[in-house]
Amino acid sequence: MKRIENFKSIIDKYDIIFFDAFGVIKTYQGLMPGIQNTFDYLSEQGKEYYIVTNDASRSPLQLAESYHRAGLTVITPERIVSSGMLTKEYLDLKVDDGIVAYLGTPESSHYIESSGLHTLPVSSINADNIDKVNALIFLDDEGFNWCDDLNKTVNILRKRTIPVIVANTDKAYPVSIHDVGIAIGGIAAMIESIIGRQFIRFGKPDSQMFMFTFDLIREYRTVTKQQIVMVGDTLQTDILGGNKFGLDTVLVLSGNTLPKDANNRITATGIVPTYICDSAVVDLGGLRF
Amino acid sequence: MKRIENFKSIIDKYDIIFFDAFGVIKTYQGLMPGIQNTFDYLSEQGKEYYIVTNDASRSPLQLAESYHRAGLTVITPERIVSSGMLTKEYLDLKVDDGIVAYLGTPESSHYIESSGLHTLPVSSINADNIDKVNALIFLDDEGFNWCDDLNKTVNILRKRTIPVIVANTDKAYPVSIHDVGIAIGGIAAMIESIIGRQFIRFGKPDSQMFMFTFDLIREYRTVTKQQIVMVGDTLQTDILGGNKFGLDTVLVLSGNTLPKDANNRITATGIVPTYICDSAVVDLGGLRF
Amino acid sequence: MKRIENFKSIIDKYDIIFFDAFGVIKTYQGLMPGIQNTFDYLSEQGKEYYIVTNDASRSPLQLAESYHRAGLTVITPERIVSSGMLTKEYLDLKVDDGIVAYLGTPESSHYIESSGLHTLPVSSINADNIDKVNALIFLDDEGFNWCDDLNKTVNILRKRTIPVIVANTDKAYPVSIHDVGIAIGGIAAMIESIIGRQFIRFGKPDSQMFMFTFDLIREYRTVTKQQIVMVGDTLQTDILGGNKFGLDTVLVLSGNTLPKDANNRITATGIVPTYICDSAVVDLGGLRF
Amino acid sequence: MKRIENFKSIIDKYDIIFFDAFGVIKTYQGLMPGIQNTFDYLSEQGKEYYIVTNDASRSPLQLAESYHRAGLTVITPERIVSSGMLTKEYLDLKVDDGIVAYLGTPESSHYIESSGLHTLPVSSINADNIDKVNALIFLDDEGFNWCDDLNKTVNILRKRTIPVIVANTDKAYPVSIHDVGIAIGGIAAMIESIIGRQFIRFGKPDSQMFMFTFDLIREYRTVTKQQIVMVGDTLQTDILGGNKFGLDTVLVLSGNTLPKDANNRITATGIVPTYICDSAVVDLGGLRF
Repeated sequence: MKRIENFKSIIDKYDIIFFDAFGVIKTYQGLMPGIQNTFDYLSEQGKEYYIVTNDASRSPLQLAESYHRAGLTVITPERIVSSGMLTKEYLDLKVDDGIVAYLGTPESSHYIESSGLHTLPVSSINADNIDKVNALIFLDDEGFNWCDDLNKTVNILRKRTIPVIVANTDKAYPVSIHDVGIAIGGIAAMIESIIGRQFIRFGKPDSQMFMFTFDLIREYRTVTKQQIVMVGDTLQTDILGGNKFGLDTVLVLSGNTLPKDANNRITATGIVPTYICDSAVVDLGGLRF
Repeated sequence: MKRIENFKSIIDKYDIIFFDAFGVIKTYQGLMPGIQNTFDYLSEQGKEYYIVTNDASRSPLQLAESYHRAGLTVITPERIVSSGMLTKEYLDLKVDDGIVAYLGTPESSHYIESSGLHTLPVSSINADNIDKVNALIFLDDEGFNWCDDLNKTVNILRKRTIPVIVANTDKAYPVSIHDVGIAIGGIAAMIESIIGRQFIRFGKPDSQMFMFTFDLIREYRTVTKQQIVMVGDTLQTDILGGNKFGLDTVLVLSGNTLPKDANNRITATGIVPTYICDSAVVDLGGLRF
Repeated sequence: MKRIENFKSIIDKYDIIFFDAFGVIKTYQGLMPGIQNTFDYLSEQGKEYYIVTNDASRSPLQLAESYHRAGLTVITPERIVSSGMLTKEYLDLKVDDGIVAYLGTPESSHYIESSGLHTLPVSSINADNIDKVNALIFLDDEGFNWCDDLNKTVNILRKRTIPVIVANTDKAYPVSIHDVGIAIGGIAAMIESIIGRQFIRFGKPDSQMFMFTFDLIREYRTVTKQQIVMVGDTLQTDILGGNKFGLDTVLVLSGNTLPKDANNRITATGIVPTYICDSAVVDLGGLRF
Repeated sequence: MKRIENFKSIIDKYDIIFFDAFGVIKTYQGLMPGIQNTFDYLSEQGKEYYIVTNDASRSPLQLAESYHRAGLTVITPERIVSSGMLTKEYLDLKVDDGIVAYLGTPESSHYIESSGLHTLPVSSINADNIDKVNALIFLDDEGFNWCDDLNKTVNILRKRTIPVIVANTDKAYPVSIHDVGIAIGGIAAMIESIIGRQFIRFGKPDSQMFMFTFDLIREYRTVTKQQIVMVGDTLQTDILGGNKFGLDTVLVLSGNTLPKDANNRITATGIVPTYICDSAVVDLGGLRF
């Protein structure tokens, strides 16, 4: 584990950079200040990047648009890999027909639709259509009535023996400098415990997320795991998952892991990043802001 | 483990009977048919009874009234021991002043109020009064907005290092012949997992529930554990808790544990009742209805 | 939570003191230096004490003798309450006949023997006597071959649906200034997970331990929970258990919880002692050594 | 989910078959009777196969030799993918130098050795070399003294913040018709719980095992997930893992999952195979033995 002063020297050592989104490129208020420098430098050096994010609330196109609105126009949809995309792949491969019931916003459900599959919010499931429900998906913590629809979800799953997919493994996420929100991964864990089944989880630290991105790259070029570095702010997802997949890893201290806690947390969890860096912002010397 | 035909022979062997409520004395539709016989026989034989229930939604007085309305007028409030009463004892002993924030209905909060303590729903906690919050209690799954107030609960607990009490350990409860509802114990487990703390739980199978009842009896008479039998429909709460406290136990098959599953569940869990009986209903022979 | 300079002022406020043993009265090397002062002061002030310990490896008589050998001759067996004593009470009440198989030393098994019950080490269970095994007990991490006897335990429990008692809930215990040993509670949790059953656990933080001691006192005097304080070095056992039972609690920093970590651990766990004190040693002023 | 009479019709639908080893191809006594038919038919039809096994106790070469000795000479080492191979890949990518401490037999450690890395049994770690230990691996339940070396492992991990790899996730494995043995995955879970860290686990149901095999195939041919079927006897590993990776799955009833329990277990776990089949043995009609 090495302490790195300037993120630039990390970019210099690898060909492809995987970035976590929240706490690395953006904050609850917008872009991470100075992150434009990093993408300028990547472009200048001809390095590739992917944003690997536990976010199933929107499609890659919508996620890219949100970066554009914030001023980071360089990010294209094909550079974004989300846990929602793995959910879509799962449905394509494993669920042939019928209804996919979901908890989330209508937007979160659109991009997982496939030919032959019909998505319906849990609130629209009833005695007439429950027998056609062939999968149930936890997509987002918004877009439904928690009390009504979580109780309904428990009872749908008691009646139907179907795959249940958790499209975002996070338990909570920051909503302001002081507060967090309960994420759909935390809600899903409650339902899992109540009905005593094991759901299918996509998202870091699970390897399938990294493999999906690795496969995307191999469609157009050859690459080895040694050429890639994973950059994230959370030991239990970004660093654990990156390490397990065989990548070098960088823990940045601009998000979940505070500078004062980093060493204690590494010792307590036994999850050791290859490098530690204050942030993923490239310091351009005199031009810094 | 003995299979018993008629619950009467169990009453004959013990001096005091502890009954679970749901699935034993009542169902989601009202009284267990024929249970009046049991209480008539108890009275006739001069046997004592207690209803030992994981229910913090109402006071013993309110619980007794609900039996009276259903036609079982013999049950008096002092015969009911609820996990809510342990919560009240905890607050009396351990929280001297300030605000006790709660999730539940206003009715569920009234009977836990003590001199010096002020109960407030989580929805009424704000920047002005949060510093006075000295305990937080999960009382009931009704009476609050799940989305707003559960998110608020997480953030209150991130700011205040205070005891958190879960007044009902059940994860789910039956609401109709086919459906269950998520209980406050299941919701509390989700919050506990999200914030990474260990809450204080009252309710079966925890021994403190049995000890509280045992102490109530010892206030007016001498008694040994051998004189008491615990009757319940759930292995993991009634039978495990009763066994651990040192009581003989009866599993009745009129609720959570179906006749066809009883032996498999006993083998799978390793929780062995002293007796198995179809129900807690005393069969009065020719008089049966 | 108050920071207390001298443990003497705590003794002055209560009538009965419950002490944890390890990290409070003794260390892995012998007596806690200066602890004799505390017992002298207790005696002088006419205060009572109990040692409430998660230790099932020896009888109270043997435990008292070990204090005597170390020079603390004031401690009598009837002042020691161990999780082994709860195990013995359980067997007396709940297991009528047959064999009680155990993991531990022969010494640890002697004092749990009752009339009618025969204890045998797991290593002595075979095809001829397995059908008479009516309970299995985890007593101590010593006295058996881990590989042979743990594999045998798993297979005994697959064949016999019997109560399993874990007489010590600790997962590890200190054996030197740098090293810990795996305790029988950690081993039992592994077996529990492998066979998928729920064992019966005695020992702090479980309330039954405190209730047992409370009942011992009530046999000869009246007492309320407000007259008692629990003193321990471990938040998750001594303080959590004492709090839940309704006692005031003192966290001492002479054992498991280091002075530099105390506040962080309290915040992280949400387990708040009534007081914090450097140690349970009474400072006699000019006489200090 | 379809019930299939003859495994032959499954082979006919796919190009590549992934087999679990234990309970599918072999039993605790040797080869699954009749399994030679299956491999003859695969060869005749020009279908490919891989054995995907949670076994880190031996190298693929040694595993192939054990099939040869049992009479199944067709199985070549390059057709065997074990969780031990993922462990070796991890060490190659992530641990540059120093000592890799292990629990297991010397044979299990040989094939994970890489240039620059030195493997040493936990029993050989001491004050002189502990600072060079850069990883610790749980390989096999044999080859070490459980009491001495598990205690030592706990203390090594308290002193060294290093990656810990569990090369076999199984908790238990069958050793005879009636008995099971504790597997290294169960032992590792105990150590993980005692020291409070999260280890890296390789082996089904983890996706990395399936991805590794999928990548092996793609080195010499193109393939889609739809061309592959995973055959196994265990819902929680083979079927859950295969489903999650996007493969069709076959539950065979010749091992862990008994014919009488299959439907109940599927309903209870929510893990649904594409097909159920009595065994992976191809029935050659009149030629059956």
